[in-house]
Amino acid sequence: MKVAHVLHMNGGVGHASYANNSLVQEKVICLTKPIREEAITSLYCNTVPRSLAVADLGCSSGPNTLLVVSEFIKIVEKLCRELNHKSPEYKVFLNDLPGNDFNNIFKSLDSFKEKLRDEMESRIGPCYFYGVPGSFYGRVFPNQSLHFVHSSYSLQWLSKVPEGVDNNRGNVYIGSTSPTNVARAYYEQFQRDFSLFLKCRAEELVKGGCMVLTFLGRRSDDPSSKDGGYIWELMATALNDMVLQGIIKEEQLDTFNIPQYTPSPSEVKLEVLKEGSFAINRLEVSEVNWDAFDDWNALEFESERADSLSDGGYNVAQCMRAVAEPMLVSHFGEAIIEEVFSRYQQILADRMSKEKTKFTNVTILLTKKA
Amino acid sequence: MKVAHVLHMNGGVGHASYANNSLVQEKVICLTKPIREEAITSLYCNTVPRSLAVADLGCSSGPNTLLVVSEFIKIVEKLCRELNHKSPEYKVFLNDLPGNDFNNIFKSLDSFKEKLRDEMESRIGPCYFYGVPGSFYGRVFPNQSLHFVHSSYSLQWLSKVPEGVDNNRGNVYIGSTSPTNVARAYYEQFQRDFSLFLKCRAEELVKGGCMVLTFLGRRSDDPSSKDGGYIWELMATALNDMVLQGIIKEEQLDTFNIPQYTPSPSEVKLEVLKEGSFAINRLEVSEVNWDAFDDWNALEFESERADSLSDGGYNVAQCMRAVAEPMLVSHFGEAIIEEVFSRYQQILADRMSKEKTKFTNVTILLTKKA
Repeated sequence: MKVAHVLHMNGGVGHASYANNSLVQEKVICLTKPIREEAITSLYCNTVPRSLAVADLGCSSGPNTLLVVSEFIKIVEKLCRELNHKSPEYKVFLNDLPGNDFNNIFKSLDSFKEKLRDEMESRIGPCYFYGVPGSFYGRVFPNQSLHFVHSSYSLQWLSKVPEGVDNNRGNVYIGSTSPTNVARAYYEQFQRDFSLFLKCRAEELVKGGCMVLTFLGRRSDDPSSKDGGYIWELMATALNDMVLQGIIKEEQLDTFNIPQYTPSPSEVKLEVLKEGSFAINRLEVSEVNWDAFDDWNALEFESERADSLSDGGYNVAQCMRAVAEPMLVSHFGEAIIEEVFSRYQQILADRMSKEKTKFTNVTILLTKKA
Repeated sequence: MKVAHVLHMNGGVGHASYANNSLVQEKVICLTKPIREEAITSLYCNTVPRSLAVADLGCSSGPNTLLVVSEFIKIVEKLCRELNHKSPEYKVFLNDLPGNDFNNIFKSLDSFKEKLRDEMESRIGPCYFYGVPGSFYGRVFPNQSLHFVHSSYSLQWLSKVPEGVDNNRGNVYIGSTSPTNVARAYYEQFQRDFSLFLKCRAEELVKGGCMVLTFLGRRSDDPSSKDGGYIWELMATALNDMVLQGIIKEEQLDTFNIPQYTPSPSEVKLEVLKEGSFAINRLEVSEVNWDAFDDWNALEFESERADSLSDGGYNVAQCMRAVAEPMLVSHFGEAIIEEVFSRYQQILADRMSKEKTKFTNVTILLTKKA
């Protein structure tokens, strides 16, 4: 499985699309807003650039794609008013793997720009938008061409499934029954990938440029702890049931592992310190419910939608489907997908009725050293 | 009809896709290669830039999209070898309207880069690719950010159908039976659009930067002459036949006009002189057969494909379909499309058996003045 070819969110705007199932990711972006505000304010005030180049890495395709961009522009414009500065020019680079649905983003840009101009009281600086396909585990931009890099819920994806996890039977990630070498292999792959990421971005950012990175992570320093991979363990349960019933071959499940690692804050910090190009300004942990709707104000939705949204198992299964379907299809084929997610939904609903299940977010603010 | 929403080549890689029906456009690009060689050589030698930013405007999505980019890089790399220079860095901007199939381009980039590296004997400079959606009848890039702009077979598309052509009954473009105000309205729209294009590019190009622009055009200074719009006149014939048979409403045909103008060399020249930002280095006219296959060596294809390619009417109808289908669907609906192109194919085949039918290409090389 070549990750760069099969790792992408479900495209389009349909029922199972990422665009329609990305509320968790949206909430995480809202949660981490204060860190970006701090970063952008200090970036602008320290450098007062006439042209600002901002990149969103792993931008996906949906309502979240331009959320951070819009926030970024609003913060800078507000600073310009306060400081009586002329608005700068904005260069916005939207990056994701080549399988991402860029067409969908591009078709929404005109209305996005119109809406942004309507929301601002006065004229904003000229904005130029670029789609930039390619893996961020390699160079994506020219030397010293970026001021601000953002990435949310993307860096937990590895460049590939680590080697040496052939004995991870019945699991799809680090699970409670995984042999110890599996967690080690995953961690080492994370180290290689994230340090390469840091090295590349250090070349691409201007001096004083900064990054706000949010990982789907975990609190515990034990990589097999429940808060890191529990949601995948439940997917493995659904798949194992299907093996027992002869719907999936055992060998097929045994060779399926997801290219993801949910790091702890100290694992993230360690790589940054080892790589050496960045100063750490902030490192924070937050949490979001698996079912993003369950603390959402149901009154915000029409009653019909509110009803359907109250089915937490469904919501979480759809959220995971938008993320994982292309990978599952590539490995198991199209035919079993409905069955997998129908079982997964039931398992999720059961667990969520018995415990408070949350995703852990690790957010780090970094500034490129001189 | 909002041109920016409905003007795009047929997407994907299927039977009726632009990607599979763009041989005419490819031949035109090959024909105009010497002009680009001259332009790029003089650009490189006069400025010796460490970073080269090149934009293809109206890049479409198919085998032609990266043809000019690949040629550009090869020419520069050859110059670097000869002059014993270090390779520059390349920034490649692929622009088209937001409805273009950028996903298809992005998925092909990895293999394109691999192939390019294989074809070159030695290491080439780093290449960065960007998709840039938006109309080129407006600003697309920051001030003075481009060295070389290329556009082939795109600039004949206007920003909109000109106003005041309501009386162009039974025609879809300037036809032999069009009232005189129609040609005038089309010409004035061309003047407004092309002068705006020049003004925007003058702001985006660095001093000494250059452009090679190829229009689908005509030789004659008479806009209703046959070499400009004959191919659309034959499409109008097919549509008129369908009106007579009650398949299309007369009123529907009367309100359909294509947003295109095929300028003469002197019309192109006049706008450049009036706008004033560019020096004209070259202005050339060339021709290419409607059926791009008819002087192609059939031995290059497998015999089965060679047979199908010998049907000139089919080839030209497919070529026009890849270009015009989205516009026709938007105005007349999906239902009549097969019928239109089946009739069009017969009319084309008949005309091509009786006369030598050719497209006229107008190519201009411009350098931005100090």
